[in-house]
Amino acid sequence: MLVKHSTITDKVYFEHPEFRDIKVPFKKISQTDTISENGNIKNPDLIVYDTSGPLSDPDFKADTKGIKKYRKDWIKNLDSENKSQMHYAKKGIITNEMQYVAIRENALLDQAKTLGINAPYESSLPDQVTAEFVRNEIACGRAIIPANINHTELEPMIIGKNFLVKVNSNIGNSSLSSSIDEEVEKLVWSTRWGADTVMDLSTGKNIHQTREHIVRNSPVPIGTVPIYQALEKVNGKAEDLNWNVFKETLIEQAEQGVDYFTIHAGVLLRYVPLTANRLTGIVSRGGSIMASWCLSHHKENFLYEHFDDICEIMKKYDVSFSLGDGLRPGSIADANDEAQFAELKTLGELTKHAWEHNVQVMIEGPGHVPLHLIKENVEKEEAWCHDAPFYTLGPLTTDIAPGYDHITSAIGAANIGSFGTSMLCYVTPKEHLGLPNKEDVKQGLMAYKIAAHAADLAKGHKGAYVRDYLLSKARFEFRWEDQFNLGLDPQTARDFHDETLPKQSGKTAHFCSMCGPKFCSMKISQDIKKEHGNEIELIELGMHEKSKEFNAAGNSIYSKA
Amino acid sequence: MLVKHSTITDKVYFEHPEFRDIKVPFKKISQTDTISENGNIKNPDLIVYDTSGPLSDPDFKADTKGIKKYRKDWIKNLDSENKSQMHYAKKGIITNEMQYVAIRENALLDQAKTLGINAPYESSLPDQVTAEFVRNEIACGRAIIPANINHTELEPMIIGKNFLVKVNSNIGNSSLSSSIDEEVEKLVWSTRWGADTVMDLSTGKNIHQTREHIVRNSPVPIGTVPIYQALEKVNGKAEDLNWNVFKETLIEQAEQGVDYFTIHAGVLLRYVPLTANRLTGIVSRGGSIMASWCLSHHKENFLYEHFDDICEIMKKYDVSFSLGDGLRPGSIADANDEAQFAELKTLGELTKHAWEHNVQVMIEGPGHVPLHLIKENVEKEEAWCHDAPFYTLGPLTTDIAPGYDHITSAIGAANIGSFGTSMLCYVTPKEHLGLPNKEDVKQGLMAYKIAAHAADLAKGHKGAYVRDYLLSKARFEFRWEDQFNLGLDPQTARDFHDETLPKQSGKTAHFCSMCGPKFCSMKISQDIKKEHGNEIELIELGMHEKSKEFNAAGNSIYSKA
Repeated sequence: MLVKHSTITDKVYFEHPEFRDIKVPFKKISQTDTISENGNIKNPDLIVYDTSGPLSDPDFKADTKGIKKYRKDWIKNLDSENKSQMHYAKKGIITNEMQYVAIRENALLDQAKTLGINAPYESSLPDQVTAEFVRNEIACGRAIIPANINHTELEPMIIGKNFLVKVNSNIGNSSLSSSIDEEVEKLVWSTRWGADTVMDLSTGKNIHQTREHIVRNSPVPIGTVPIYQALEKVNGKAEDLNWNVFKETLIEQAEQGVDYFTIHAGVLLRYVPLTANRLTGIVSRGGSIMASWCLSHHKENFLYEHFDDICEIMKKYDVSFSLGDGLRPGSIADANDEAQFAELKTLGELTKHAWEHNVQVMIEGPGHVPLHLIKENVEKEEAWCHDAPFYTLGPLTTDIAPGYDHITSAIGAANIGSFGTSMLCYVTPKEHLGLPNKEDVKQGLMAYKIAAHAADLAKGHKGAYVRDYLLSKARFEFRWEDQFNLGLDPQTARDFHDETLPKQSGKTAHFCSMCGPKFCSMKISQDIKKEHGNEIELIELGMHEKSKEFNAAGNSIYSKA
Repeated sequence: MLVKHSTITDKVYFEHPEFRDIKVPFKKISQTDTISENGNIKNPDLIVYDTSGPLSDPDFKADTKGIKKYRKDWIKNLDSENKSQMHYAKKGIITNEMQYVAIRENALLDQAKTLGINAPYESSLPDQVTAEFVRNEIACGRAIIPANINHTELEPMIIGKNFLVKVNSNIGNSSLSSSIDEEVEKLVWSTRWGADTVMDLSTGKNIHQTREHIVRNSPVPIGTVPIYQALEKVNGKAEDLNWNVFKETLIEQAEQGVDYFTIHAGVLLRYVPLTANRLTGIVSRGGSIMASWCLSHHKENFLYEHFDDICEIMKKYDVSFSLGDGLRPGSIADANDEAQFAELKTLGELTKHAWEHNVQVMIEGPGHVPLHLIKENVEKEEAWCHDAPFYTLGPLTTDIAPGYDHITSAIGAANIGSFGTSMLCYVTPKEHLGLPNKEDVKQGLMAYKIAAHAADLAKGHKGAYVRDYLLSKARFEFRWEDQFNLGLDPQTARDFHDETLPKQSGKTAHFCSMCGPKFCSMKISQDIKKEHGNEIELIELGMHEKSKEFNAAGNSIYSKA
């Protein structure tokens, strides 16, 4: 739900001081005052990252015309045959897209400084994100800005380990379920709930039209798996796939404005037998299609053989690679096995190759991995794939909870994010069971916004910390509305609170129904400060004396009563 | 929900070969056959840990008489003034409780051996749990069996880092919400959803009667925080608390059969000022009450001063300590601070002291901690508290998601469990917002059963791995009913599946609505094996030749097309 009390949450724009057509949208969360005996104290607004573009308007209706073509004029100015951000970055050119994402990524860091809220731990992340920093990250391949020149509706964003951890939402129909309208509806709500990119994985009817509707209405990058549509074109027979039908599909989708393509070019003929003794074989749809093709023809994967040709197409539109992990493990038993790592190594080789064409690359990762084997995935990916951004599906940390795989995988996602994964592909509660509906998309996104934020904190992101700080301050001061609004899902928090204390007076009460008024630790804690302030100061003074004695006595705290 | 298709899931009992009154209940999950071209292949039953005792009966009704007094005759045979399991363990005596938990913990390990399902990673956990192993763990304080001699209805369980990770569910009313019946209902469903222990945190009306009803009907250990009732006895005024009213409360609750007491004896007067500059002060109810008392009287915490007296009471009943973390951090900002660790050190001193009395001890832990600071908590706890079992609330890995704190904290719980925490206290979606209802209890438990299992896998528990293995095998073979039944919540999985494919034929279909028939990777993967088995063998043979060439050529996988 969007916040009903919409006066509290507003959209604001940060303009670039020089390039006035660069206006970066944020969500502004206003706060009420802290009430103290010495009068009210103002609390600052919090400006947070916002992915929803024009779709945040509660009255937004998608149509075939689509949303505002924000980047139209930027594109005009591009003069080369190779349109990729990496191409410009390597030339030392800072594009509008780079300026845009720098403002977007820097806002929280700036607020931390302005408000003097300092995360009490070390970090290897930059203190400030400049456009030049962005350019350099793109140039060396450590980050990507997926931004097809034909997706002029896009609000650019960046994926890389030195930036905020991002979240992808998968939508798309299957032959058994859903319509175009339902999928566009999922796009709208995905961005409102914070999806940074959206993948349209449609495999059913009207693939082209569904995608057209999605791209034209999307402020976030759209990813696809072109082999799905290619397979539809050959009536679902994997062995009938060929380079020509695939090439035609790539161009069709690139023309539409798809920002990144999952390409399963690492599923090599010789790797397929490595999956034969797996518990769950090949669980990637694209991976199983390509494996099937390879075996039918006893030929090498044509995506691998035509990798150069693919790069030639992609660089003209600046479509980024999401090099698919067709051999990812689909169960705890198959985690980190030979097939998975053989493919990962090949993806590293392909990365270098794509970079020769200046095509941007990210690398897809698993899947199902127990907690203690997660770190190895990031280490190997960084080493073998030359620090290209890692983009992982979960991973699920256990197989035993169908119906709750947003949780089994949020655990893995938070961990893999904290180790340096740049984007987390969500998993919904319906995983393994059916096509997610709108509510499932929401639950998946909430779990993954949590995972991404937990990872940001663990990486020591000084901007991410500000929101936790302000929310906890509001909580401690019983500013209930501020606590709700600073949270990821204000309406749910409010509804939960109101279930037992529905009256307006509950919103200023110094307790909730969990503990009641007498047992609220935060209330007692506040009273302690109020009633015993002097007492505490005296003890503190005494403590300095005591602590000397204590240390002299060899640190033994306990003494018999 | 309990499984509707109840013929699939049955209760079985493992009898001790010598002591025939020791019958340990398990849940049996039967499977259907694997259908192959060469006829059907039987799949094994899986016997899983079951905490629900007589409460698993769908017709179970709680009453004042309570459930069967299973341990009644065991208690009779105890001959000492000191009734604690630690007392006997140190004497080299193996109690019935130790025999019982050995069978309970060993069952999964045994199945792994019998079925030949070998987790493909190292582990420091024992391959077999014997009663002697249990005795030794109790004797050295690394594990506890919370089992009040007056809780004769108990089915004993063990908490320690060398055993399965356990989960606690908090129930109990507040002055604003809930009734005795509702709380007993939460007990019943807590055990059905897998709670290993239950804490009755009631602070409202009828504390004594509510607890009586709960203990008499509980097959799992019951924990309490006696200071809550003591505070009610002095009309909610913390400064009126005193040793006599507390002592009387301890005895009252010990007589009833409470299995462990949270005692906030580590909140020392001199630590209170350390919380003065915290963002969220003291967030433990017991902690804030004791801090308030200390400051009012300018005296040392009477629980600390009377620690010997408390031990004297507890050892007569074998009530275990859960040494409370009254100064745990209540926000990311306050994690791992001076106040928290000062108290933890004192808890270590108190642990040694309790052990002199042979009173069993576990140590409570935080709270709110970002991912990268979690490990330090376990390391310090183990070092300072001499390997006494750690029992943590979450921790929440971010503050920004009120309404979803079962997820923010399941991430932390899985991690802290994997580092060696023995029991995880759940957090429900209502945390910070209100008193949880039955559905919240369920959501909290599901998230924590997942976290505990993910931690077991990460520790390399060879028995835990069997369930993941069998479930994924069922999934790969499209045995939908088996997949549902092997999961933590069969009914939810079944309902999700049936939302889009409700017909019985969907239960044997080689796809679901997520991808539809043409795009099911598992189906394609199976077809590959069926249709290309010979092909794969040939490639495998070829590969050995190829791999020699490949290595000779310097490992460069990619060659230009």
